[in-house]
Amino acid sequence: MFYFESDYLEGCCPQILEALQATNLEQTPGYGEDPHCAKAADMIRFVFDCPDADIHFLVGGTQTNATVIASLLRPHQGVLCAASAHINVHETGAVEHSGHKILALPAPDGKIRAAQVQEALEAHQRDFSREHMVQPGMVYISFPTELGTIYTKQELTDLHAVCTEWEIPLFIDGARLGYGLEASGCNVLPKDLPRLCDVFYIGGTKQGALFGEAVVFSDTRLSEDFRYFIKQNGGMLAKGRLLGIQFEALMNNGLYFQLARRADRLADRIRAAFARKGIAFLVRNTTNQVFPVLTKDAIARFAAEFGFEEWQAVDAEHSAVRFCTSWATPDRAIDDLEAYIEKNL
Amino acid sequence: MFYFESDYLEGCCPQILEALQATNLEQTPGYGEDPHCAKAADMIRFVFDCPDADIHFLVGGTQTNATVIASLLRPHQGVLCAASAHINVHETGAVEHSGHKILALPAPDGKIRAAQVQEALEAHQRDFSREHMVQPGMVYISFPTELGTIYTKQELTDLHAVCTEWEIPLFIDGARLGYGLEASGCNVLPKDLPRLCDVFYIGGTKQGALFGEAVVFSDTRLSEDFRYFIKQNGGMLAKGRLLGIQFEALMNNGLYFQLARRADRLADRIRAAFARKGIAFLVRNTTNQVFPVLTKDAIARFAAEFGFEEWQAVDAEHSAVRFCTSWATPDRAIDDLEAYIEKNL
Amino acid sequence: MFYFESDYLEGCCPQILEALQATNLEQTPGYGEDPHCAKAADMIRFVFDCPDADIHFLVGGTQTNATVIASLLRPHQGVLCAASAHINVHETGAVEHSGHKILALPAPDGKIRAAQVQEALEAHQRDFSREHMVQPGMVYISFPTELGTIYTKQELTDLHAVCTEWEIPLFIDGARLGYGLEASGCNVLPKDLPRLCDVFYIGGTKQGALFGEAVVFSDTRLSEDFRYFIKQNGGMLAKGRLLGIQFEALMNNGLYFQLARRADRLADRIRAAFARKGIAFLVRNTTNQVFPVLTKDAIARFAAEFGFEEWQAVDAEHSAVRFCTSWATPDRAIDDLEAYIEKNL
Amino acid sequence: MFYFESDYLEGCCPQILEALQATNLEQTPGYGEDPHCAKAADMIRFVFDCPDADIHFLVGGTQTNATVIASLLRPHQGVLCAASAHINVHETGAVEHSGHKILALPAPDGKIRAAQVQEALEAHQRDFSREHMVQPGMVYISFPTELGTIYTKQELTDLHAVCTEWEIPLFIDGARLGYGLEASGCNVLPKDLPRLCDVFYIGGTKQGALFGEAVVFSDTRLSEDFRYFIKQNGGMLAKGRLLGIQFEALMNNGLYFQLARRADRLADRIRAAFARKGIAFLVRNTTNQVFPVLTKDAIARFAAEFGFEEWQAVDAEHSAVRFCTSWATPDRAIDDLEAYIEKNL
Repeated sequence: MFYFESDYLEGCCPQILEALQATNLEQTPGYGEDPHCAKAADMIRFVFDCPDADIHFLVGGTQTNATVIASLLRPHQGVLCAASAHINVHETGAVEHSGHKILALPAPDGKIRAAQVQEALEAHQRDFSREHMVQPGMVYISFPTELGTIYTKQELTDLHAVCTEWEIPLFIDGARLGYGLEASGCNVLPKDLPRLCDVFYIGGTKQGALFGEAVVFSDTRLSEDFRYFIKQNGGMLAKGRLLGIQFEALMNNGLYFQLARRADRLADRIRAAFARKGIAFLVRNTTNQVFPVLTKDAIARFAAEFGFEEWQAVDAEHSAVRFCTSWATPDRAIDDLEAYIEKNL
Repeated sequence: MFYFESDYLEGCCPQILEALQATNLEQTPGYGEDPHCAKAADMIRFVFDCPDADIHFLVGGTQTNATVIASLLRPHQGVLCAASAHINVHETGAVEHSGHKILALPAPDGKIRAAQVQEALEAHQRDFSREHMVQPGMVYISFPTELGTIYTKQELTDLHAVCTEWEIPLFIDGARLGYGLEASGCNVLPKDLPRLCDVFYIGGTKQGALFGEAVVFSDTRLSEDFRYFIKQNGGMLAKGRLLGIQFEALMNNGLYFQLARRADRLADRIRAAFARKGIAFLVRNTTNQVFPVLTKDAIARFAAEFGFEEWQAVDAEHSAVRFCTSWATPDRAIDDLEAYIEKNL
Repeated sequence: MFYFESDYLEGCCPQILEALQATNLEQTPGYGEDPHCAKAADMIRFVFDCPDADIHFLVGGTQTNATVIASLLRPHQGVLCAASAHINVHETGAVEHSGHKILALPAPDGKIRAAQVQEALEAHQRDFSREHMVQPGMVYISFPTELGTIYTKQELTDLHAVCTEWEIPLFIDGARLGYGLEASGCNVLPKDLPRLCDVFYIGGTKQGALFGEAVVFSDTRLSEDFRYFIKQNGGMLAKGRLLGIQFEALMNNGLYFQLARRADRLADRIRAAFARKGIAFLVRNTTNQVFPVLTKDAIARFAAEFGFEEWQAVDAEHSAVRFCTSWATPDRAIDDLEAYIEKNL
Repeated sequence: MFYFESDYLEGCCPQILEALQATNLEQTPGYGEDPHCAKAADMIRFVFDCPDADIHFLVGGTQTNATVIASLLRPHQGVLCAASAHINVHETGAVEHSGHKILALPAPDGKIRAAQVQEALEAHQRDFSREHMVQPGMVYISFPTELGTIYTKQELTDLHAVCTEWEIPLFIDGARLGYGLEASGCNVLPKDLPRLCDVFYIGGTKQGALFGEAVVFSDTRLSEDFRYFIKQNGGMLAKGRLLGIQFEALMNNGLYFQLARRADRLADRIRAAFARKGIAFLVRNTTNQVFPVLTKDAIARFAAEFGFEEWQAVDAEHSAVRFCTSWATPDRAIDDLEAYIEKNL
């Protein structure tokens, strides 16, 4: 039985395992101050066309979000984001643990818009009792969103313009960045990202690495003393080179993007298979997560053959489920799933 | 040139790399709820003879310390420890970041004694203005200490007795636990540890793993909801099985202890070589860290041939330096160092 | 011109000023350990019929909320409350500053119901990824609510039953407690309160004192070490007797309730005057805050004659405004307002 | 029996009570935005000759310290201060509660010197693993210190010069500021203070007010959004005018300084009386706290006649005790104490 529950069910792409093997007995300094991290950072600067960016490697996504946010906000400030944002729902209050309120905005498709942010900032500014309220101090979005949707280049441009006007940073959580950039219909290029926000990260964990996230500060004024924050928040890996080695492998010859592209195309096949049967989706998207809405009966039948995640109830009879693809999904698993859908729905 | 700066300069022991390779395409649930973590926990329960212990795996030491301490203290409480403790000196204030004061006690040899803890607790209790002071809420020690010294079984027994009497937990940081347990002169056995404290951890990062620390709650009343804390503090690895796989390998056939024992014996050879030349040591110890006190001139000469760490100035002419051994130290590097010492001091 | 903006526009009721004068040269211990605080606590125990309650005095409401909540929750827990709750909207993130997420529930009339709390607790419990979410650890309500509405005895009984079943405390913010207890239609008596929750506070600031809130722990297991929390959160007044002296005066001969009752009756007159003119209200309530919905034109006219607060826009043409009464509102100000309403609407 | 335990045993100076009475029925806006606060701030600007300073009023000292420090530091920074500093010893970890480590320096006479601060900053800067340590982000001193000693103008000048060079703020806790400025031998004038530090506060609680501390930011770049911090830390008094009214009274005609001067002179008489009998002192000082070292026997005899505080044991037979004077100390109490000392030592 093949499991589609998430994109982190397996180990890592073979190129990374090979690199770990090949470098295993090298002696290097710890804490990210080794040649592999330096090299990986240079490759990222090249690929994302941000020669002056400051780049840091952390272990996981929740840790990265909490650390970046803690480094950007003053204590009386909070972070604007979608109500469905990972930081608001699935990080056990890590942002609040570091003292900051999350200022959630409604986002039915997972995205927040420039006009919402503008309105939130204005509303705060014009409130006579604003000093009794948390001051919006930054904006957090994810690309793709929790629902696998992606922002257009124009949407990001508009969001960044509002942030720039109000002098607050825009932070993009890219835990699944590659799946977004390679999605059909995406008009954002890697080299656009550093110009469309102030800091973002390139997710490794869900994109073929064992673990690891690469934070890119395109606005280097924001990264002063960031290594202190990494250490304070428990994200400074003693054998930091493990992060450098993995991102070297991922950035080499576009591997990161190839793996993501293939996974997106496999997801497209799943979407198409459900669509051919007239199945609706919780949300229209083109990344590696597929959210068909199935009857309870269908869910029970599918669950005997495939692993997937029950996402949320839609009505008394239907629930949305989630199928994820990844670097590790074999073509054959998709063949089987397609065939099963064709025959059983 | 061989580097002795630390015990985390290389990747990991070959058995771990093999296990990662062998399991790479297995599909498992995330976040530590996989069969490898379950198996590794069982192996630890067996090896440390604590069949009822609650065991969790985290990524790194600072993270583990901050997470365990945050889970044990109420906001008005602090942690008693040696002034030289890692949490007090080298974790960028992670404990304070989670709101707690560190209550440092003097510890010239890195160890704190039961009488000191007793006196600190009594002093707090008899102070009429104690409510204006931070309440001691737990004790943190490390085994071995920052200076590579080890507690005797009696010292641990006494410390634990004081803690038990005052109803506060004793937490042992075991980042280098194996080096301590295998040190010559150590009379503490693995199976003693769960009885000598309330929670401890088995360090992987510095003992042959890529990363990873295994927290063992022998007092399971203390671990309620601990997984929430792991997540909140950024320590819950998505591919949690990586921790389980590594600790399975380390616990298999006593590998963890073999690697540590060999490193300790290599360190003994370094100690002996310096001692033969009449060199003094910053501290007398028997674990994998050696702290000879050398003249500035000798340091400069040695530095051209070997990597090591300058630890602290002792007087105007002398400094203590640190040589570490590990699973990865080749016999030949020790041969060379011995020969160099013999000839050049 | 008379101002109705709030119930804290003036100093304090004359009885308190007299008591401050009379006791000014007494020498007493500081920090709340004086005879006046002891006496006031005894009077509160008598009036609220809770002979075993543990009682503490703090300076202000935000401080009291943050301190009580910080003392009750573990770091991974959050507080369930109405979206409109003071702690969620008007305390500059003080709860988050101490590390806790606010888990807001919809509450159009300012009140949350037992069924909502039950559902939130169940939803958390049945979520397989609950360890990635903040655990509900307590319930906060205010009596009266931010909208001046009051809970019935049955509603409080039901809320407390749910909390008791789930073993989480129910905390009642009583910043305007007297106005609630004396409101027409209120069927909750002072002696009911300690049985209907685990901890509540009796507001002084908005009820005739210069400042001060009296926290009553009817569940004394929850107040262990609470004085440490008061000090840590900056609420331990050096001249703590000022709080005792004020609450002695307020509890003497039912003054606290008399002042509140009179203010509620004056507010009833304002409500009736608007109602006679067919004016709608943002919410139906019977406490000392009145929320008529007026046209922009009417608001402008009224603003030339009386002080009041613009509360929120209702539609393009109408806004709700707030008139508050207090111990300091002269009958004559109400006469004038009644007359003005009668003539000008 | 007269009590000399502290300088906050009584209510407030009569001028303040009168002012509270006189203004009691005025209607003013809340939260410090009233004419009395504005007027008091102007008076402070005049008296301390800092026409551009930003001035805020808080309720108590611990709260003020925690709030100012939280507003000045980033999360990875700590505060340098004397080991005996109030923030380090007697504030129940309020600074750590807001996430910051206290970096204590030895200070036998309660004072820290510029050279110590310089050395601490340099040591941090030259440490290769500084990112693993808390970064010194500000300096806190108190004037007078916990031991009632005072800094000379030169010492403050030097401290401020080091802070300025390293671009970190110098914060002076002035809980007993007046007693320091009026002490014999003090060569610091009120108008010097704003130039000798970046932010300080003028203590009211221990200097004749019911409560209240006036924070003066001479470097107004540091006070941006400070009112948010006051609110978040529970220090924003609803009836904020109470603070303005009190400081108006204290600044009027130099009352603040007169009260302090008289108390200092009364303390001088106590010091002289003990000195005449050959009694030693814990520390040589000239402010309102006197620390004679007495035998246990003498302490027992004195305790039957006067209230005072046992401060610390000096040896097996002797302890230092503390006598405080204040605005409320009657001449006659000093006459009695002098006579008793003369006759009984």
